[in-house]
Formats: sequence, C-alpha cells, structure tokens
Amino acid sequence: MSPPTDRFTALDVYDVRFPTSDNLDGSDAMNANPDYSAAYAVLRTDATDGLEGHALAFTTGPGNDLQISAIKGLAEWVVGRRVEDVLGDLGAFSHELIHEPHLRWLGPEKGVVQMAAGAMINAAWDLRAKRAGQPLWQHLARLEPDELVSLVDFRYLTDALTQGEALAILERARQGRGEREERLLNQGYPAYTTTPGWLGYSDDKLDRLAREAVEQGFTLIKLKVGADVADDVRRMKVARAAVGDGIRIAVDANQRWDVGPAIDWMRALGPYDPYWIEEPTSPDDVLGHAVIRHAIHPIKVATGEHAANRMIFKQLLQIGAVDIVQIDAARVAGVNENLAILLLAAKYGIPVCPHAGGVGLCEMVQHLSMLDYVAVSGSWEDRVIEHVDHLHEHFVTPVHLEYGRYRAPLAAGGGGEMLADSVAQYSYPDGPIWAARRQ
Amino acid sequence: MSPPTDRFTALDVYDVRFPTSDNLDGSDAMNANPDYSAAYAVLRTDATDGLEGHALAFTTGPGNDLQISAIKGLAEWVVGRRVEDVLGDLGAFSHELIHEPHLRWLGPEKGVVQMAAGAMINAAWDLRAKRAGQPLWQHLARLEPDELVSLVDFRYLTDALTQGEALAILERARQGRGEREERLLNQGYPAYTTTPGWLGYSDDKLDRLAREAVEQGFTLIKLKVGADVADDVRRMKVARAAVGDGIRIAVDANQRWDVGPAIDWMRALGPYDPYWIEEPTSPDDVLGHAVIRHAIHPIKVATGEHAANRMIFKQLLQIGAVDIVQIDAARVAGVNENLAILLLAAKYGIPVCPHAGGVGLCEMVQHLSMLDYVAVSGSWEDRVIEHVDHLHEHFVTPVHLEYGRYRAPLAAGGGGEMLADSVAQYSYPDGPIWAARRQ
Repeated sequence: MSPPTDRFTALDVYDVRFPTSDNLDGSDAMNANPDYSAAYAVLRTDATDGLEGHALAFTTGPGNDLQISAIKGLAEWVVGRRVEDVLGDLGAFSHELIHEPHLRWLGPEKGVVQMAAGAMINAAWDLRAKRAGQPLWQHLARLEPDELVSLVDFRYLTDALTQGEALAILERARQGRGEREERLLNQGYPAYTTTPGWLGYSDDKLDRLAREAVEQGFTLIKLKVGADVADDVRRMKVARAAVGDGIRIAVDANQRWDVGPAIDWMRALGPYDPYWIEEPTSPDDVLGHAVIRHAIHPIKVATGEHAANRMIFKQLLQIGAVDIVQIDAARVAGVNENLAILLLAAKYGIPVCPHAGGVGLCEMVQHLSMLDYVAVSGSWEDRVIEHVDHLHEHFVTPVHLEYGRYRAPLAAGGGGEMLADSVAQYSYPDGPIWAARRQ
Repeated sequence: MSPPTDRFTALDVYDVRFPTSDNLDGSDAMNANPDYSAAYAVLRTDATDGLEGHALAFTTGPGNDLQISAIKGLAEWVVGRRVEDVLGDLGAFSHELIHEPHLRWLGPEKGVVQMAAGAMINAAWDLRAKRAGQPLWQHLARLEPDELVSLVDFRYLTDALTQGEALAILERARQGRGEREERLLNQGYPAYTTTPGWLGYSDDKLDRLAREAVEQGFTLIKLKVGADVADDVRRMKVARAAVGDGIRIAVDANQRWDVGPAIDWMRALGPYDPYWIEEPTSPDDVLGHAVIRHAIHPIKVATGEHAANRMIFKQLLQIGAVDIVQIDAARVAGVNENLAILLLAAKYGIPVCPHAGGVGLCEMVQHLSMLDYVAVSGSWEDRVIEHVDHLHEHFVTPVHLEYGRYRAPLAAGGGGEMLADSVAQYSYPDGPIWAARRQ
C-alpha cells in the first residue's frame, strides 16, 4: 500500500443511461422498456498513484437519480478518511455501512440503500485490487482463509453458517488453489447466453440466434418467458429444434407468476426439457420457491438476482427452495455480502450461477464466480456465468468470451470502470446522446 | 364526490424532523440516537373544497431527504390526473404504483420506494375520506365486501389467500358491522404502552412509569431489550414487580439477535413471564422466526413493523412463524397493502397488533385496527394498538386515549395531517428549531 497519509477526497456519482428501449433487447415479462442505466460511482484519493475505485448500481432508467442520491449520501462515510484504514479492513467498513441505524431504517438491508452500500463497497474493492495490481478475483482468491472470513458479516447467519464452518470451507478449498487458478487462466470459466431469448424477438430471430449460440460454443441458452403460455410453448419448441437435445435451455419468468400458475406454466413447457426456471415468482417468496421446486422436479429452480440480502439466500438454502443460486454483483451490499452468499451456497452444496447482463454486471460478477472456483466451492461443475452481449464496449476492461467461456481477466481491478468518453456521451440528461434525442 | 373536472395539482413533500435524540426517548438496541422524522406528503387539487391529502413516511433523521426524493419522484403519477379517476379506484392506482417496472427494479416492493408508494397511497386515502366526510376507519369499514376486495393486490398471494377467500372473510364480517361500530365508538380500541420501557431509562424511571401505566388503565406494557442480558433480566424484574402478575409485559429486541441468541436470551427472561418477544431477529428471516417461536413457546413471537411487503407476512403466516402480526401504517404500500395483510391474518386466525409510536404512526394506524375490528377479523380479542406518548401535539387530530383505549377518531381523514405551524417550525434544515440549534 502507498503512504499512510493518503486520504479519500471524493465520492463522485454519475447518471449514465443507455437508450436500450429503442429496440427490444432487454425486454422480458416484467420490464417492457428498460433504458439500461448505471448509478456510476467513482472513489477518488489524493494518492500520487492516480488510482480510482469504480463501481455501479444498475437500474432500468427512471429512478437512476434516486439511486444516485442514495450513493451520494454515503460520501461522508469515506471522504476524509485514510485510504489504508478503509481498504485494510473492508469487513469493518462494510459492517459500518450496512448497520448504520438511520440507513438501516430505510431498508433494513434492502432496496436503494443496500444497492448504494454495494456500489460503495465494490468501488473500494476495485481500488484495493488496482493498488495491489491484481484482478479482483485473483486478489480475493489469494487471501488467507482467515482474512476472507473477516470480510463476512455473520449477523443473522449463524443458525446456518458459523464463522468456524466458513473457515473450514475455505481451509478445505485452500488445497488446490494454485492448480485451479492455473486451470482458470488456461481454460476460462463456463458461460451461458441470454442473447437469443428476449421476449420481443421473432421466431426466426430466436432460431437464428440459438443456432449461432451453439456454434459459438455455448452449452446453455436462456429464453425469457411469462407473457403468454402458448407463445412460450411455441418459442421453446423453436429453440429446442434449433439447438438439439445436447444443449440446456433455461427459462426466465422475471417474477411474473404466482405459485400455482408457475407450476402450471412449467408443466406446459416440460416436454421441451427446460433446464431451470429462473425467478418464477416474487424474489421474497422463499416458501413459494420451495413449493414450486417440489412440484416441477426435475426442472430446476433458480433465483437470487433480486434477493435483497444474505438472509433471503440463507433461507432459500435452509429450506431447499433452489437448485441454483443466482448472485448479482450490484444488488446486495457488494463483494463482502456476495462472499457470504458464496459461502452459504458452498455449505449447502448448491451451485452459484450469477445473473449478469445489464450494464457492467458481466464485467463485475465474473470476478465472484472465479473467486468461488479458485477459493470457495472449488468447483465449476454445473456452474455458468450469464452472458448478455450488451454494452461491453463502454468498459475499460470488457469481458472477453472464447468459445462459450469467460477468459479470466488479467487487468487490475474489479471490472466496473467505464470509458470516460462513454460516461460523458451517455450522461443523463445533458450528455450529447440524450441532448440530441430531445431535438 | 365533487365535479369530475377536479384535477390533482401538486404533490408537495416536506422534510420535518424532531430533535428526539436530545433525550433517550425512542432509544432501543438498534437505534441509539434517532431524530424522529417525517417525509411528509401533501396532495393538492384544484377543487373548490380546499381539501388536501396528508400522509407521511417515518424515518429516524438522516436519510429523510432520500425518502423525500422517492416520494417526489411519484408526482408524475398523480399531478394532472382527475381526482375522481384516482380516488374512485385506489385499487388500480396502488397496483400501478407498486408494479411500475422502473420503480420495481429499485425494490422490488421494498425499502425506500415501497415507503414512498405507501405515503402517496395513504395521502390519497386521507383525501378520499375527507371528501366523504368520514374518519378513514369508518369510510373503509362501510364499504361493501366486493369493493374492499377490489382494493387488494393479490399478486403473489393466491397460494395463501384467493380473491374468493378474501370475499368470504369480508362477507362473514359483514354481519355485525353496525354493532361493532357502535361498540367501538362507545368503548374505544384496546391499547398498550411502550412509554415505560426505553433502554435509556433508569430502573427508578422504569418502575415509576410502569406503575403509572397500570394506573392509566393499560393491561400490557412493553420493554425494549437486547443490549445486555443481565440488564434486561434486572429491568424485567423491576417491571414485573411494579405491575404485578395480572399485567402483560411484552419485550422488543428491535432485530438485535441471531436465532440462537434470541432463544437463549428469551429463556433468561422466561421467569418474569414475557408475553411476546418482538422483532427477535432480521425481519426478513421467516424461517428464523419459526424456529424461535417453536423453541420459546409459550412466549409469543411478534414481528412485522419492518416486514417489507405482503409476501413476507404471507410466509410468516403460512409457516406459523408468528403469534402476533405487527403492521405499520407507513412501511408497506399504504392502506391497500395493509388491507391485504389484515385479510391474510384473518385467514390464518392470527391477531394484528400494530406498531406505532414514531411520528404520526399512532394517528394513522389506529384506523387500520378499527377497520379490522369492524369489518375484517371482527374481533379485538388479544389485539392492542401500540401507544407511545411522543409528538402527538403536532397533529391536527391527535390520538385520544382513555383508560388504556384509543377513542375512535371522529374527524374526517386518515389522521396523518400535521399542524402547519409544526411543519414550519421543525422543517429541516432551515426551520426555526433547527436554525436555532446551529447557533
């Protein structure tokens, strides 16, 4: 680390919006016209290294300003503090932020304030990894088990996962870390693609994109469902015909259904062998997911991208409500809370397959899956990171896929840094892209 | 209703904060120095009647500005619309607000955006009741069962409560509504008091206030617990000695514990016969509450003031995690979502004992318990509304207690209207009270 006199000087937050609602990329059963947007946070210091911490909260356009206000409200927690004090104990920093009583009242630990804490904590991790000169996954995966444990907030978790159990999981995974890091660097991490399956696409486009996905090396594709059952049966048939029997097809209802309709709908799709159903119902409904899972076995149940915090994941695992845990880099309180979730999933032996897409979510979340592989679960069996081919060109270190696998990023940092020019162009409402649209 | 040409002209939102952290009123195991505050919403129209809709979201000070931004963001949903269109179908209005995809992304249905929807919906109900010239409880309790059902959003509820079941509950309660309204007007609704039991009070003050509470007619008092077990055992002993055996003593941990410690702590308090333990752990932890309830029987488990939405209440009831459902007037999406929760509780036969205190929460939530008594559960057995003797003097129609019972309010509206002078005096940061403190 650099001199102990370095201090944080600013937390700047930018409103960056992409007019994705112009076409139907990103359309699903619940989100008809999203403008994929970022409440984009930049943590600055007075260090001579010139390094900054970058991260974002992802929204769908309107409301991005509210998310920005929430992040800005956290500036007082960091500006003026010594960089080393904060980065040297990000477990304590994270604990402070999520348990601050006044912010807690606005959640607790959910929604806008939780995503704000996530952006702040992820920006701090980005800076820490940059200062260490390592990609975040590697920086984390090389920490000692006891340091990793110190990053986790065990409040409300101890009936499912104690500090001791977490340490045992990490100690077990300590063996073979070097080999797995090597393998990851050589082979990359398995991905799946949602590109073919947006609701707004024609059958022809779905057919074509599904075939292309297989040619590109993907072994799992995903279709959005939930608007109309007859349409979904037809689309599922088109997709299955396009990819053949050897390829997994997941479906995603984006929380559209009640418990009963979810079961009926999935039975209608059953003949086409869906691999998992994602977000069949409310992300808060732990018991509902358990009922659905029991009813539609062997179709798997996946959820988590909208699960507010580690307590929801804990319960999903305790009661056996899910086959797949879907973390999101920017929904919960950042790297620290996601590490807690990785540990919970490892304890219960459930694979983590992150949600991505959006703006920069692929770039950020890949680090967590790679951490999981190298140092937590120690496995990539039945694990895949979502890939959506959106907006990567706006990032300094965009994800790089080769034959259906994420190449392990080598650049220092957490992946969430956008190009300065993209931030300027897509600034809302006054950047050139938005100004031109108003003329 | 007045002329169909009336339109909404503004949704004004005010930052009103009371410096309650000066003393230790309101202190508990999780909230050490709250300044009880309101994100205070006023809905205005161009009608000649001059009536306005008033409601608030309650916060503990810092972050009130964020809550205000969230409410302001909803102005476009109402300003310019015809008053009759909105007030005439508040079921549709509520559905629109809570399922708007971009706002949903920031929750979904939780935290800052949910409380904002609640403030907006409650303000609309306040206006509707004022236009009808009725107190809100009476206005609601006199609606036909099918109209009440039309107010409820059954999304995600149908595995626990269908529209038909809700209608049957309300039809059953239709019988005897008149008599119960009469009885309520004559006798008032049972209350309990939290005034004696704040954590910061000395044993002498606790003893004195507990005795006074009994003299004032309360049959249930509540103590805050959770900071130190030895202290709590001593305080519980003091309180039990003060009130004797015939009075119920509830305790409230404000989410302080993990599941295991909650059980241990309550066993330590067991000899002093606590009636319920409130918020023993995370409000999101449905399964945790179920485990605690099973372990500490016959001590009852209560929660709900921080439960984000009807899906959490549904699960608490489905799995038998609670003995007492604690609604809050301003945490969920307003009257409509609280009606859903009252119906769920009635279906499962669990009493509703609202959380109140704060700013204006007593004034608002009493209407919901009275609605419950007259037209939903039809019972007040084992039901009590919390009463805390804070800040009532700032409201136009403050609650009125007589010998441990809330008198049924007779003034038109929903109770959340503050005195204009209080709003001006306590405006943050520039009102006279706050300006003077900075000198």
